[in-house]
Amino acid sequence: MHSEEPEGNQVVPSTGQNLDPHLKRYAARAEGMTASEVRALFAVASRPEVVSLAGGMPNLAALPLDSIAAEVAGLIASDGLVALQYGSAHGVPGLREQICDVMAIEGITGHPDDIVVTVGSQMALDLVTRIFCDPGDVVIAEGPSYVGALGTFASYQANVVHVEMDSAGLVPEALRQALAAAAAQGQRVKFLYTIPNFHNPAGVTLAVSRRAEILEICRKAGVLVIEDNPYGLLGFDGQTYPALRSMDPDNVIYLGSFSKTFASGLRVGWALAPHAVREKLVLAAEAAVLSPPVLSQLIVSRYLATHDWKGQIKSFQTMYRERRDALLTSLDQHMPAGCTWTKPDGGFFVWMTVPEGIDTKAMQPRAVTARVAYVPGIGFYADRFGSRQMRLSFCYPTPERIREGVRRLAVVLEQEMELLRTFGPASRRITSGPQTPSPDTA
Amino acid sequence: MHSEEPEGNQVVPSTGQNLDPHLKRYAARAEGMTASEVRALFAVASRPEVVSLAGGMPNLAALPLDSIAAEVAGLIASDGLVALQYGSAHGVPGLREQICDVMAIEGITGHPDDIVVTVGSQMALDLVTRIFCDPGDVVIAEGPSYVGALGTFASYQANVVHVEMDSAGLVPEALRQALAAAAAQGQRVKFLYTIPNFHNPAGVTLAVSRRAEILEICRKAGVLVIEDNPYGLLGFDGQTYPALRSMDPDNVIYLGSFSKTFASGLRVGWALAPHAVREKLVLAAEAAVLSPPVLSQLIVSRYLATHDWKGQIKSFQTMYRERRDALLTSLDQHMPAGCTWTKPDGGFFVWMTVPEGIDTKAMQPRAVTARVAYVPGIGFYADRFGSRQMRLSFCYPTPERIREGVRRLAVVLEQEMELLRTFGPASRRITSGPQTPSPDTA
Repeated sequence: MHSEEPEGNQVVPSTGQNLDPHLKRYAARAEGMTASEVRALFAVASRPEVVSLAGGMPNLAALPLDSIAAEVAGLIASDGLVALQYGSAHGVPGLREQICDVMAIEGITGHPDDIVVTVGSQMALDLVTRIFCDPGDVVIAEGPSYVGALGTFASYQANVVHVEMDSAGLVPEALRQALAAAAAQGQRVKFLYTIPNFHNPAGVTLAVSRRAEILEICRKAGVLVIEDNPYGLLGFDGQTYPALRSMDPDNVIYLGSFSKTFASGLRVGWALAPHAVREKLVLAAEAAVLSPPVLSQLIVSRYLATHDWKGQIKSFQTMYRERRDALLTSLDQHMPAGCTWTKPDGGFFVWMTVPEGIDTKAMQPRAVTARVAYVPGIGFYADRFGSRQMRLSFCYPTPERIREGVRRLAVVLEQEMELLRTFGPASRRITSGPQTPSPDTA
Repeated sequence: MHSEEPEGNQVVPSTGQNLDPHLKRYAARAEGMTASEVRALFAVASRPEVVSLAGGMPNLAALPLDSIAAEVAGLIASDGLVALQYGSAHGVPGLREQICDVMAIEGITGHPDDIVVTVGSQMALDLVTRIFCDPGDVVIAEGPSYVGALGTFASYQANVVHVEMDSAGLVPEALRQALAAAAAQGQRVKFLYTIPNFHNPAGVTLAVSRRAEILEICRKAGVLVIEDNPYGLLGFDGQTYPALRSMDPDNVIYLGSFSKTFASGLRVGWALAPHAVREKLVLAAEAAVLSPPVLSQLIVSRYLATHDWKGQIKSFQTMYRERRDALLTSLDQHMPAGCTWTKPDGGFFVWMTVPEGIDTKAMQPRAVTARVAYVPGIGFYADRFGSRQMRLSFCYPTPERIREGVRRLAVVLEQEMELLRTFGPASRRITSGPQTPSPDTA
């Protein structure tokens, strides 16, 4: 998952008059579904003259389109009656076997029967939330967390409790405290949602030394772990980390995706779940979409069978490493004192904190005017924390454009700091830490 | 929508011991998600020696696979960076314009902005239910109704109230009474879910003379209409009927699909909704899948642009008409006295009622042993009505196989009636009519 559309629909309350004649008919859960003000800005930010450090779109330019085209043509000509026909909600069996090979790279030994193929791993997350979360149930997530996950949790009226990260990822002691606090308040915590590797948006990786501890804490608390791992194979030195799923198969639901390692537009992701949960997921998937697209699944399957997909991932690693280097180097060169940022060794994102008094959301229109875009931090929290943070993506623009974008951003920040020194804070900042958000205010 | 998997997951309660260690963690809505006993039987029914009159899979053999393969190859080679990339949750703009042309055939004048492209129209139905139905809300549906819709309603804990049909479709007076009864009980009715054309499973079409009346009843009651129309262009004489949406744009959400007119495996459907509702649907779609597969959408778009899709639909009409004729003729020839059935002039399905005392679900294993399969009627009701009914599909087997299947089915029915005369009813039949079901008992 983790798309190019990072605006959090649960973050910004709709303020205008509502002219919708169907207003009184909606379900309670629909109240959390309001369009973000960021959305309009995104249209502007996508103009070619703007360097977008905002989107999370993978760069597909390195894909061998001609040979993929030939394979797909062969597939339709020879197996079209299968490829264009309904499939099962469980997913194509051959692909599920190949997915086991992909997961084995990170130490997972799963059975193809326990995999459900989904329309991107976003759908897997939606199904997991659907079968586990009643309104008011609590989901623990890193703070910050993936904006698309927060949207899904909000759409099922789950309450998100954020837990602190540091440069080694989720902090076990903070998790322990959050679980204890939830228990003390009588809240039902359904799962920990975590992105252990090359976190979106934080750009950090959960230390291997913490993994067993995190799993132990969750197991003791009777809380499932949802491990979302779209970037795990995009370590810049080819390194991988043992999946949480590999360490506790019975208490982890693993979400995987081909969006970052092959092609996002096919929308092929999956969940690997304990057997009984997998059965529920298939039934939920039937109700949601009947079956994922068979053609997409067969294209991925054939690509894995006929292309050097591991070599392709290596070339993705090299490309993204160059872009990460361009971003970090130019941040070092240009950012004013008081800015700090994470140093990812994989994935797509750097998380930057700016000096006190600067509100990254308030600053964003000025940045776009200066032809650079980022995503303000508050979109990655369910509780409006993150006003001093921003996400910088290095996945899509070229290194040269990244450097130019950082130069522009540095100028905007310098101006903002000058204004701040002269006039004081431009807007009231929210300084409270992670807390239980209410979806009703979303 | 309307897939090849007609087993109703909400119909048959799971009875075995539950060995799922996660049992206490599920959301309340997950209780309704139990696998049907019919599922196991379906695996048997899909053996080649069994004539399946059960599935709802379209027959794609008439599609020009080679030219589709060539078009798709060209698409990936030339536009692969778009086709394989994330898209918007709203759908590809060009396709949305073409969808307006498709809908115009049935009298709809819609704006491309008011269309949301979905992963099959099943997903559109899921999103509509998601944004409108709180647990306990009532959905009015024809009795019988599409099994996949019943599964979706159950997964959102909506209660289905069935309304009677006759050979001219939904009975207006019965709808009026159901709405009055719901109002008297203080129930919140959210929408009427209806399949006006070539109903699945009933095989009847809502008379044009009833359409304005149905719409008027719903408008007066403040109840939305969800018009599900996957078969509308498959009238056997090329006839079409004015869409409900064309007669009341503000109170109808229209669901369309390319699954029956082009290729089900691409999973491309859509909703056309009043503007404010459409905005909610897009936000719900983002939370559900981020975006529908771009490649699938572009394939449909290119197919519509480069192929004689109207001519293709004509050849589908001819093929399905021959199969309908084969089914109706052999039913006339072989079925024992006391059996009645509908006579569809389009679509995929015939709905048959067997003599009193015969339970179509109890009889099904014997039918499969005799190498013919159908879907028992109870799967199409939320209230376990339908024990004397069965759905017979004529879409997939050849006319010859259909005739052979009916011969086999007639033998099974004769034997069943002989047993009945000798020993009385084999099982307690449920004879109550449509009533409010409880999803808790599902």
